[in-house]
Amino acid sequence: MKNKENKIINFNNKPYIIGYAAVGSEYEKQGPLGGEFDYIVNDPTAGEECWEQAESRLQKTALGIALKKSGKSNEDIGVVFAGDLLNQCVGSTFGIMEYNIPFAGVYGACSTMALSLIMASAFVDGGFVNSAAAVTSSHFCSAERQFRFPLEYAGQRPPTAQRTACASGAVIVSNKPSEIYVKSAFLGKTVDYGIADANNMGAAMAPAAADTILRFLKETESAPLDYDKIFTGDLGQVGSELLYELCLKEKVDLRSNHLDCGLLIYDRVKQKVGAGGSGCGCSASVLCTHILNKLKAGEYKKVLFCATGALLSATTAQQGENIPSIAHLVELIRI
Amino acid sequence: MKNKENKIINFNNKPYIIGYAAVGSEYEKQGPLGGEFDYIVNDPTAGEECWEQAESRLQKTALGIALKKSGKSNEDIGVVFAGDLLNQCVGSTFGIMEYNIPFAGVYGACSTMALSLIMASAFVDGGFVNSAAAVTSSHFCSAERQFRFPLEYAGQRPPTAQRTACASGAVIVSNKPSEIYVKSAFLGKTVDYGIADANNMGAAMAPAAADTILRFLKETESAPLDYDKIFTGDLGQVGSELLYELCLKEKVDLRSNHLDCGLLIYDRVKQKVGAGGSGCGCSASVLCTHILNKLKAGEYKKVLFCATGALLSATTAQQGENIPSIAHLVELIRI
Repeated sequence: MKNKENKIINFNNKPYIIGYAAVGSEYEKQGPLGGEFDYIVNDPTAGEECWEQAESRLQKTALGIALKKSGKSNEDIGVVFAGDLLNQCVGSTFGIMEYNIPFAGVYGACSTMALSLIMASAFVDGGFVNSAAAVTSSHFCSAERQFRFPLEYAGQRPPTAQRTACASGAVIVSNKPSEIYVKSAFLGKTVDYGIADANNMGAAMAPAAADTILRFLKETESAPLDYDKIFTGDLGQVGSELLYELCLKEKVDLRSNHLDCGLLIYDRVKQKVGAGGSGCGCSASVLCTHILNKLKAGEYKKVLFCATGALLSATTAQQGENIPSIAHLVELIRI
Repeated sequence: MKNKENKIINFNNKPYIIGYAAVGSEYEKQGPLGGEFDYIVNDPTAGEECWEQAESRLQKTALGIALKKSGKSNEDIGVVFAGDLLNQCVGSTFGIMEYNIPFAGVYGACSTMALSLIMASAFVDGGFVNSAAAVTSSHFCSAERQFRFPLEYAGQRPPTAQRTACASGAVIVSNKPSEIYVKSAFLGKTVDYGIADANNMGAAMAPAAADTILRFLKETESAPLDYDKIFTGDLGQVGSELLYELCLKEKVDLRSNHLDCGLLIYDRVKQKVGAGGSGCGCSASVLCTHILNKLKAGEYKKVLFCATGALLSATTAQQGENIPSIAHLVELIRI
């Protein structure tokens, strides 16, 4: 470990998760977690005039439901940390504007849910605010045309490609006690393994996930089986296999209790989503359905949520740059 | 004030500014602050192959010099908060990757320096890290082609337009005592006054600056003259005048001790920059030259740094959306 300051952040005051919500589209409804979403938009426009506005609508809806479930109003929230994949994070700007909450934009590509949750937890734990929100989203249609091709072009994608989820997740963190809290966090470093194929994000992100998880386990002197589950998001099928390989090299076997958000959200074969799901909204909505629901029900007591992001833009991809990646980790505890 | 939780964040443990650096190009060198920049790149490519890489080079250089001046190495920094105007913040990703420091991406458009400095201060003040860095940049050439036209098109800009600075600023915040510290911060809300002219960012951002400054003064029960200077960045000529107007309506007169980073960085008339400078690198480099130098020299004892950001993308501008804006404020004290 080269950076001696790259330490686990322990939240001593227990920032609690007091509310959360996931919003998706019909595609997510048809997936294995479909029944756990709080709200499903009827069609991908979500009643808006363009895909970007539709994505903002997802965030608006998710934050609204999360606030309601937490028993808080927008006036109780000291800051909202939000970001998304759209250029200049406009999905978040327009998504949460109406709530009139101080807004701190964050960017971590598909790792944004973990990053915003870490920021919200730190601001509550540090006593800077009493409550904070963490929100993110992605939208298949806005992402496709921004990063790849207009939908009308009907571009074919290779099997290593992942489908950007049309979904949003919102979490309310507070100093008001609840059953679930954020025990610790670990901010990732940017990792570049020389992958430059924008249709194989799983391969680009797996080294970042391995780097963060291995260093976290080493520093906490814990083993994978000390946790009920270790979630990554979103490595998909290709990235998950690479993660196992990279960890096995360091004699760490994740295979028995690892799950990937990109593999949980869709039925990969039936729904023909290539290597799995992706997008900020993927790990965010899996966190706000499967993960937090199972923690709330007591089925999980201690999990790691390690969201991964591929830090590319259409411009850097066209310029032939590699795809550096990052993975931020959050440790969640059920009391 | 609708949001009762939108409070001043008081940093009780005095996060200190132990190092800072500004990097610019020949254009910034020719401006009134030219002599205060730590490093000037010979030409706008900064020796790189494209404008985006050049922008990353600015960040890399600024962070390197700031670290050196602070007496710290990359291994001493627990987290770097960085962001920029480029799609998916790639200027920061590629700019700071080599330093091997945990990376938290932030996005606040041209307000990013204030936002990243607030985050760095909060993480030091909360005891989550011993030292943190805040970095941002902008580049005239990468911004022009991304937001407006390719340079080769030689597009004419109206006099209300501002010139994106080719500059970067980096600040090292630490719990190790120094002469300057961050006393408090105030996170802004997104403000939309219905401005949709992407060539008049000053007008779009002035209401956000007014909103943040007026609410800060009200909550702290202070008056403009309680501070040696109140800096905004980057409202330019048009936005600064609007700011005065909006504040005078609330019986607050900023005219005698307000300065705008967009008006400080260039000689507006001689350098033909329209309404002034802009871009994340503008307020960042003015902070890391004029403001922090004068604080260090003891010429200023107490200043407010209120950086402003226009939260648009080329897509939302083309879709006819308004330009919502935000202003984040930092209070800096010379011991």
